[in-house]
Amino acid sequence: MVDDRKMLSPSEEEGDEEMDPESTEKVFEGMDVPSWTEQLTVRAFVVSLILGSAFSVIVMKLNFSTGIIPSLNVSSGFLGFFFVKAWVKFISKAGQPFTRQENTVIQTCVAATAGIGFSGGFGSYLFAMSEIVAKQRDIFNDSNNVKNPHLGWMIGFMFVVSFLGLFCLVPLRKIMIIDYKLIYPSGTATALLINSFHTPKGSKLVRKQIGKLGKFFSISFAWSFFQWFFNAGEGCGFESFPTFGLKAYANKFYFDFSAMYVGVGMICPYLVNISLLVGSILSWGVMWPLISKKEGIWFPAGLPETDMQGLQGYKIFISIAMILGDGLYNFVKVLSRTIMSIVKQAGQNKSLPESITSSTNIITVDFDEKRRNEAFEKDQIPKSYALVGYIAIATISIGILPHMFPPLKRYHIVTGYIIAPVFAFCNAYGCGLTDWGMASTYGKLAIFTVGAWVGASHGGVLAGLASCGVMMNIVSTAADLMQDFKTGYLTLSSPKSMFISQIIGTAIGCVVSPCVFWLFYKAFPDIGTPHSAYPVPYSGIYRSMAIIGVNGLDSLPKHCVTICLVFFISAVVINLVRDLVGEKIAAFIPVPMAMAIPLYMGSYFTIDMCVGSLILFTWEKLNKTEADAFAPAVASGLICGDGIWSLPAAFLSLANIKPPICMKFLSRSDNLRVDSFLSGQS
Amino acid sequence: MVDDRKMLSPSEEEGDEEMDPESTEKVFEGMDVPSWTEQLTVRAFVVSLILGSAFSVIVMKLNFSTGIIPSLNVSSGFLGFFFVKAWVKFISKAGQPFTRQENTVIQTCVAATAGIGFSGGFGSYLFAMSEIVAKQRDIFNDSNNVKNPHLGWMIGFMFVVSFLGLFCLVPLRKIMIIDYKLIYPSGTATALLINSFHTPKGSKLVRKQIGKLGKFFSISFAWSFFQWFFNAGEGCGFESFPTFGLKAYANKFYFDFSAMYVGVGMICPYLVNISLLVGSILSWGVMWPLISKKEGIWFPAGLPETDMQGLQGYKIFISIAMILGDGLYNFVKVLSRTIMSIVKQAGQNKSLPESITSSTNIITVDFDEKRRNEAFEKDQIPKSYALVGYIAIATISIGILPHMFPPLKRYHIVTGYIIAPVFAFCNAYGCGLTDWGMASTYGKLAIFTVGAWVGASHGGVLAGLASCGVMMNIVSTAADLMQDFKTGYLTLSSPKSMFISQIIGTAIGCVVSPCVFWLFYKAFPDIGTPHSAYPVPYSGIYRSMAIIGVNGLDSLPKHCVTICLVFFISAVVINLVRDLVGEKIAAFIPVPMAMAIPLYMGSYFTIDMCVGSLILFTWEKLNKTEADAFAPAVASGLICGDGIWSLPAAFLSLANIKPPICMKFLSRSDNLRVDSFLSGQS
Repeated sequence: MVDDRKMLSPSEEEGDEEMDPESTEKVFEGMDVPSWTEQLTVRAFVVSLILGSAFSVIVMKLNFSTGIIPSLNVSSGFLGFFFVKAWVKFISKAGQPFTRQENTVIQTCVAATAGIGFSGGFGSYLFAMSEIVAKQRDIFNDSNNVKNPHLGWMIGFMFVVSFLGLFCLVPLRKIMIIDYKLIYPSGTATALLINSFHTPKGSKLVRKQIGKLGKFFSISFAWSFFQWFFNAGEGCGFESFPTFGLKAYANKFYFDFSAMYVGVGMICPYLVNISLLVGSILSWGVMWPLISKKEGIWFPAGLPETDMQGLQGYKIFISIAMILGDGLYNFVKVLSRTIMSIVKQAGQNKSLPESITSSTNIITVDFDEKRRNEAFEKDQIPKSYALVGYIAIATISIGILPHMFPPLKRYHIVTGYIIAPVFAFCNAYGCGLTDWGMASTYGKLAIFTVGAWVGASHGGVLAGLASCGVMMNIVSTAADLMQDFKTGYLTLSSPKSMFISQIIGTAIGCVVSPCVFWLFYKAFPDIGTPHSAYPVPYSGIYRSMAIIGVNGLDSLPKHCVTICLVFFISAVVINLVRDLVGEKIAAFIPVPMAMAIPLYMGSYFTIDMCVGSLILFTWEKLNKTEADAFAPAVASGLICGDGIWSLPAAFLSLANIKPPICMKFLSRSDNLRVDSFLSGQS
Repeated sequence: MVDDRKMLSPSEEEGDEEMDPESTEKVFEGMDVPSWTEQLTVRAFVVSLILGSAFSVIVMKLNFSTGIIPSLNVSSGFLGFFFVKAWVKFISKAGQPFTRQENTVIQTCVAATAGIGFSGGFGSYLFAMSEIVAKQRDIFNDSNNVKNPHLGWMIGFMFVVSFLGLFCLVPLRKIMIIDYKLIYPSGTATALLINSFHTPKGSKLVRKQIGKLGKFFSISFAWSFFQWFFNAGEGCGFESFPTFGLKAYANKFYFDFSAMYVGVGMICPYLVNISLLVGSILSWGVMWPLISKKEGIWFPAGLPETDMQGLQGYKIFISIAMILGDGLYNFVKVLSRTIMSIVKQAGQNKSLPESITSSTNIITVDFDEKRRNEAFEKDQIPKSYALVGYIAIATISIGILPHMFPPLKRYHIVTGYIIAPVFAFCNAYGCGLTDWGMASTYGKLAIFTVGAWVGASHGGVLAGLASCGVMMNIVSTAADLMQDFKTGYLTLSSPKSMFISQIIGTAIGCVVSPCVFWLFYKAFPDIGTPHSAYPVPYSGIYRSMAIIGVNGLDSLPKHCVTICLVFFISAVVINLVRDLVGEKIAAFIPVPMAMAIPLYMGSYFTIDMCVGSLILFTWEKLNKTEADAFAPAVASGLICGDGIWSLPAAFLSLANIKPPICMKFLSRSDNLRVDSFLSGQS
């Protein structure tokens, strides 16, 4: 009756299908969910090992060359699917059927492995300890502040710091995924992609949703590919498009045409995007321009942009202060409720009324939610395991780290491990709201505070860098874990299998990444030398930050601490108000966590996400039914297409194939000068 | 039952409406069509005089400053509507109702008036005769080759040359509009816009068509506005986007993001767009690169790009040869059939089986077509009137012109007036197929041939420029007339009122434009001086062409005449084949006229138009019913939005407000040089 190729009108479907039009899980109802042990297959880990190693090589080479590491979450889910499909086809035809849960296990494991390549700091703090980088500066290059890379201690270091993040947040998974209903846009998109791969031939609507996902996946991929050609240098390409004029661009207000963040904006609740916008305007529109007028008064003039003694210092510390204010408030809230519920022996936590996250965008149909909650709560990981695990690893770590880094004392590490769970929570929470992981920002905070604490004369530079590693590993793996839990939640994968997969993946990463690093380090003697093939650009920046850090609070620009305090308190107060006024009014009060992220990152992705919101809003106005049915699929397509492109882009970068054209944006006067310069030269 | 805001699904409409879903004229059926005398109201001409004068000032200032004149067809229809609406509202409330026919009369009249500002050559051939331009060159600046502007002779000149085009093509209107069903994309779009303004509250579908038109009108306008900001100089902005790489861009293969030409592509038949593409590839992809390799052998090396002794010469002459081949073939065909039909006294011409133009895109529903044909054939303009008119004006012209331009002899002019109708036909035919008027190209041909014929020693430069004026006026007004006939056809306006309106508009233009020119000429003494506020950029180029022309065929690059001959014959042969093989196969043979246009103009608009075709093709694949119902509205919206933008753009240009940003495209190596240059300077 209905032509398949015709533009879809959901209302036509209603008579055609008896099922709930928005339920994914009804479609999967006929398929058994394997037990958690069945989800962890041998072939899954073989595939993960292969893919994870390959990704580690890619990440490592990017660490050394450009320093910019894309997120490989989507790619790992995607390639995992095709690898196992091929496996099933060519190797074990009679084998176990390939389920979406197994696919999720692979995705989690590969992402964890590759994640160590980033959080291990081989292109940043870890390499910054080496003599090569230290010698490039005149100060603090004594043996106290230098530690050359070596395979042995690196593997050891990875093992003692990389699992803490996993154990400290595992007990909070139910609160963050089910109660807070955090979005984790990339995790959600990956889950939808995996679901789409494994959907049995089902209803017309589901097929159409998959069709939409595929279509926007292709569009987003093609768009990223097209953008690549015009991105021949710094400030080139669509990424640097001064959509609102050059002045707004200088303050990082522009639409950068990123399909990924438009998709993220479509998945995130309106309030989050509005909060980001408020934060962007407040910081990049008002505060930073005002503060930069104080150049020469509040802080020395003419500093490089990355110098924490200048504007950069305000950005990082104010941003962190606000995040900590929000995070700490929520952490205390969660903790107190958990303790209360344990005291009451009630066992069943009631859902927290969190209006910010009661998303209208995500499929929230009763049936799906019920089924997912059941699956998510079926396999428990006892809280005691997590506690024992955390304490055990922390103890080992406290024993070993001072031997590796003599300037780092036991009490530094103990203090760090007491505070770390709060930071881990903050990062996982912020990432769940906005898709932004801020691991390196927390790392910078650690460099600064520990460096200052240890002091210049006692090897503070090395201690700062080492503690950066500890902190980055904890907060980064914590956020990754929660993201994977979200993916697992949406694919009915057992949290147990997710957790184990993450642990195995991390362990693989702890061995593979240092080995890959070691290979490069031995093979290319001029690694880390500026203007060589592998300049390791971020290592120098990290060492510079550590050097500034050892001078303590004095090196911070003027009034920075006061302003931070104001923002910290504001974040707490806003949260308190949000909780007191009731859901209806709270829906109009911005979330401090989301406001804080653009403070440091810039506003361009805020614009992208608001464009996503605007698209969704218009779509809902035009046709609510259709928007509800298809928006998540469209958003996921946009996120995943751009995400997959990062893989070929990485290959191009590694093969040293550079884009041919620079799409440049010049003011009219600059353009005249450039034109006369070019015509004079040719 | 059906939510108005919901995405439209035409199938839902079927049960809802009893009328033919695609008929525009059924909606207008209740409204009487005024007789042709009623269509020509006093207020229409008062409004036309005001708008036409305003447009003449704009065109003149653009003539003097940038030399680039936008098409003002759409603007005149649009502003005409609002002017008369205001008139009806404030002045004569009890007056005659404002009909779409009256609106079309205004549009025609204003466009004719403003057209003289362009075809009058005040920024090109006419000013090129002046002493100011002549003195800038060392040769041929004797009194024989100079004629300074003066109000008297300019008005006279305009009157004797501007009406010939109207009279010579009037008899062919039925063949071109009804039999050949030529598209005239801009004319069609203007008609749809005018229809949409005057649609009585009708069916849901018509309202939705108008909604689509309005929506895409706004999108197209906003897009053009957005583009403007990034267009700060030569080679800047979306107009210069090297979509397929810099090498393809150098050969003019790129998508220039022009909403107008995408819309034109959606209205033009597929075959026309494919023909354009074939022509583009053949010329810019193969021939020009090959010929430019002969630089220094076939033609002198290092010539400026506009020099007709170089590659430019090949482009212009080969293009014209091909157009003439096609035009002459069709002219002879039309003429012979007309003569045969007159001989037979049959009175009723049968439709020519012209597969190229049996458009599937345009509304071809029987009812509409029947009604439009009836209206179009109702008011006849006797062929004898046209003949008498043409001969009378030609005679006067032959009497006067040699007095104005002594080097121009009677026999030159007589020859010109015998050939001119063929050129006029060619231009009107090509414009109908592709929307491109090529008046200036025919003008260049005239400069060259007449200049060579008169010879260097007898004032050939002046004669060439004058004959350029004669030719440009004839072919330009002929194409405008036919375009307006198309608009009139689609709005049920009488051809008689169109013709009279065009004559009145032209007469206004013949007085107003020289007066405006004269004002500028007297007010700004440094007009025409390079680097002044009004450099009149094209006047120098035209004079240079005339200087080259007087050297005759010898000055043409090598083998140019031979190649032209080949293309002329090919065009005739292809047409012959197209007529012989039958409609079905002919649908796959490109049209020479369309192939010839990109030869000179470049390929960028071909890409735009093919994108339009691609959009339409995909849309038809997805949902044929919807595409048929809405494609013309969408296309017209795209054309008109961009068209209206040219008005504010002209104002910005006149107010000397320039775009702030240049979006520039540099190769990677150039970018590196520019970056170091800019960082060195700042």
